[in-house]
Amino acid sequence: MHISALTTDFYELTMMQGYFSNNLNPQVVFDMFYRTNPFEGGYTIFAGLNELIDKLESFSFSKEDLEYLKGLNQFTDDFLEYLAGYHFAGEIYAIEEGSVVFPGEPLVRVHTTLIEAQLIEGLLLNNLNFQSLIATKASRMALAANRGLLMEFGLRRAQGEDGALSASRASFIGGSVVTSNTLAGKTYGIPVSGTMAHSWIMAYGSELESFRSFARLYPDNAVLLIDTYDTLGSGIDNAIIVGLEQKKLGKKIGVRIDSGDLSYLPRVIRKKLDDAGLTDASICVSNDLTEEIVQTLIHDEVPIDSWGIGTHLVTGGAQSSLNGVYKLAAKEGKDGTIIPTMKISNSFEKTTNPGIKQVWRFFDKDGGALADLITLDSEQVVTGKNYTFYHPFAEADFFEMHKENFATCVPLLIKRMENGKRIGEKPPLTEIRENAQKGLDSFHKSYLRQINPHIYKVSLSSRLKKLKMDLLVAQRRKAKEEEAMANQ
Amino acid sequence: MHISALTTDFYELTMMQGYFSNNLNPQVVFDMFYRTNPFEGGYTIFAGLNELIDKLESFSFSKEDLEYLKGLNQFTDDFLEYLAGYHFAGEIYAIEEGSVVFPGEPLVRVHTTLIEAQLIEGLLLNNLNFQSLIATKASRMALAANRGLLMEFGLRRAQGEDGALSASRASFIGGSVVTSNTLAGKTYGIPVSGTMAHSWIMAYGSELESFRSFARLYPDNAVLLIDTYDTLGSGIDNAIIVGLEQKKLGKKIGVRIDSGDLSYLPRVIRKKLDDAGLTDASICVSNDLTEEIVQTLIHDEVPIDSWGIGTHLVTGGAQSSLNGVYKLAAKEGKDGTIIPTMKISNSFEKTTNPGIKQVWRFFDKDGGALADLITLDSEQVVTGKNYTFYHPFAEADFFEMHKENFATCVPLLIKRMENGKRIGEKPPLTEIRENAQKGLDSFHKSYLRQINPHIYKVSLSSRLKKLKMDLLVAQRRKAKEEEAMANQ
Repeated sequence: MHISALTTDFYELTMMQGYFSNNLNPQVVFDMFYRTNPFEGGYTIFAGLNELIDKLESFSFSKEDLEYLKGLNQFTDDFLEYLAGYHFAGEIYAIEEGSVVFPGEPLVRVHTTLIEAQLIEGLLLNNLNFQSLIATKASRMALAANRGLLMEFGLRRAQGEDGALSASRASFIGGSVVTSNTLAGKTYGIPVSGTMAHSWIMAYGSELESFRSFARLYPDNAVLLIDTYDTLGSGIDNAIIVGLEQKKLGKKIGVRIDSGDLSYLPRVIRKKLDDAGLTDASICVSNDLTEEIVQTLIHDEVPIDSWGIGTHLVTGGAQSSLNGVYKLAAKEGKDGTIIPTMKISNSFEKTTNPGIKQVWRFFDKDGGALADLITLDSEQVVTGKNYTFYHPFAEADFFEMHKENFATCVPLLIKRMENGKRIGEKPPLTEIRENAQKGLDSFHKSYLRQINPHIYKVSLSSRLKKLKMDLLVAQRRKAKEEEAMANQ
Repeated sequence: MHISALTTDFYELTMMQGYFSNNLNPQVVFDMFYRTNPFEGGYTIFAGLNELIDKLESFSFSKEDLEYLKGLNQFTDDFLEYLAGYHFAGEIYAIEEGSVVFPGEPLVRVHTTLIEAQLIEGLLLNNLNFQSLIATKASRMALAANRGLLMEFGLRRAQGEDGALSASRASFIGGSVVTSNTLAGKTYGIPVSGTMAHSWIMAYGSELESFRSFARLYPDNAVLLIDTYDTLGSGIDNAIIVGLEQKKLGKKIGVRIDSGDLSYLPRVIRKKLDDAGLTDASICVSNDLTEEIVQTLIHDEVPIDSWGIGTHLVTGGAQSSLNGVYKLAAKEGKDGTIIPTMKISNSFEKTTNPGIKQVWRFFDKDGGALADLITLDSEQVVTGKNYTFYHPFAEADFFEMHKENFATCVPLLIKRMENGKRIGEKPPLTEIRENAQKGLDSFHKSYLRQINPHIYKVSLSSRLKKLKMDLLVAQRRKAKEEEAMANQ
């Protein structure tokens, strides 16, 4: 999967040239993390990683790309020659794709040189932000639909062809069972599905004939769209005629409702189908469904078997992006040692956590997730010891995790790339999807609630907390010095 | 620009096979239109057309695509053979890209066979819906920014790489002046730009040195990011030091603020810059800006020269899709004549307009747009005649356009493709952008207002209105007959 390395913000290139010409290219560590969960929820499903790894493996400039840059008259020949040989040769540590993750946790750590690290920022954030957003949305919709089947029908409302394709992938990870996007079926092996459009019925003229013809052609998969003329009139009546004909052949049908009151219509239609002896006929609904509509209809026990969802599933609806960022966490000093670095902000919540870090998840004896601890990578966390969990920014807020209270603790960040190459095999998409499901199952459902979820605790270890405080004091002092110098 | 023809909803393929096997492949006309303006606004900028035409010219199935479909065991060899030879060979009429358009107007008319028309629905809607959404958003932001420069910085928050690329294109059409996405610069010739990241300053350690180094490297384009440590402290002070140094070299600087109170900070910074004699230094702001924030800051006369906007510009923010649809408007009858067709809906607003249609825009003598009239394509609309404008769905609601009241009237739908090939040259992106600007200028600003805009009138001609009513009555009668048959 080749992506042009021009898929980068232009300032990365101007900064890179600056580093290049000033011979400023230390080893660095960048963290990718996000600050708030999307959809006012309690968690995020981390997605996009394995596509990102594929893309990083071949991220490079073509001859035409370099000619374009040359034509801008802002880059030296030396630097363009460097770019011609560019390929990502760093290390990537990341949490497993599909995992349930939380604000402030480093999801990806990039270890490489400053120049290299800078170039990949846009690609990395674009892939991880978008796919994580959609996987999270899909998981929320699947939870809202309870045991109902979530079908992703988003191609025509997605943001570009690739917006559609990667949304299909992320949506499947999060919980949808099929996609309507045939290319996503081919590319990712996601089952493809669909029903029929109103144009099918209109093309035939006779609704009954159009239903009959479809059922004969696709006897195992005939979901009839019943709202072209009159849902509760000819629509359901003709569907029942064809349903009974198919029943004689040993086949089931389904009906789909794409307009009207989706609380009232399925009840009437369920009764009509049941009364006709078609108790195994399924009901599918669609029409600009949101997570909230799904939840309301399930709450009201409307008899719906499957949900065809487009817009809000593949774009995130009212929240169309995840606010993931990529920040410098450590860099090589003049003596070759790695120095923790942090970005101070006027708002303390936005001050980053310094240093090379690891995330540990603590579980009880039944495998239930208890809390996450961000530590320095050099710390070893083991069972049989007490740990103090410090609030990531509130002062003097902490709690003790007693050794009796947790049965296991697992480091989440694992090395995924070395020398710019993937380590191990690429996991199949179904495995990533299972990881998401397993992850969700390990959390008490109060953390997964659609509205006002319980807040899962993500804390800092005492060593990380101390480092952060020390750096904060040192940097405030430095800012004062800078100001004093500027005022001389 | 080759896009796999698998970029289609799966049900298109199953329906196509149905038509194919039943030998049901009449000539048809599909309309693309949308129902409501995005962002609660009064208009939409129509975008995506010329990219769509490029893609349609080469829309086809590869050998691997066909093997994938074969492996699904739902398609006959005959049909797969047909698909192997598939290429779009129809005609496309469309409104010029960049035009200001309104709900209910056919923006694109596709004339081809039923089977062909079905396959391209997803590609067509995906491209036009998304790019029109973003072009509209950009135009609204540009209007909000008044004379300020709108810079599109969306790559890292966009929905996929292609979501980013096509958003950069659409945003430029709508009103942004530069993009940060380097690939969009190469692909579309959009000027690329950017400032610096916090990591630049952090990599140097000394803020002053980092500013100085950047300004020496890029003397014509040095926009210094001043909020890494202390915006009103070292940030602006160090920027002024470097600004004065650059001034001696005959160069200007700019400063960028990416956090904090964007109403307060620019005022203080403007004063500091002016007091230092740097009256020509520009101020750029960024940080999760929305259209509403831009409008408020301009309203409050905050001295801001340019706006770096990402998320909300390239995804649409809280509205992440345009609800464009693709509906059958006419089809060939058994005798070869073209029969107007319509989709009736329980909600009258959603009932489509039947037949092959044209859109006429009426202008006053100063070139100001007055109202649009949707007619049958066979109608000729000329100056010097009165026209009755019928409301598209409200009953008995109409007004007279007197011949004295309009100076010109122009048909908007023009043939763009014939036999599946583009007619004429592809317009350069700058021309499409100018068309958008010219179009916006032709409307009274009350139609373009951000909130509660005046509603521009889009009406039906008397012949189209009559056709719609006649078909409605006939189809209601047909539905009753279908129901009677179903109940026999």
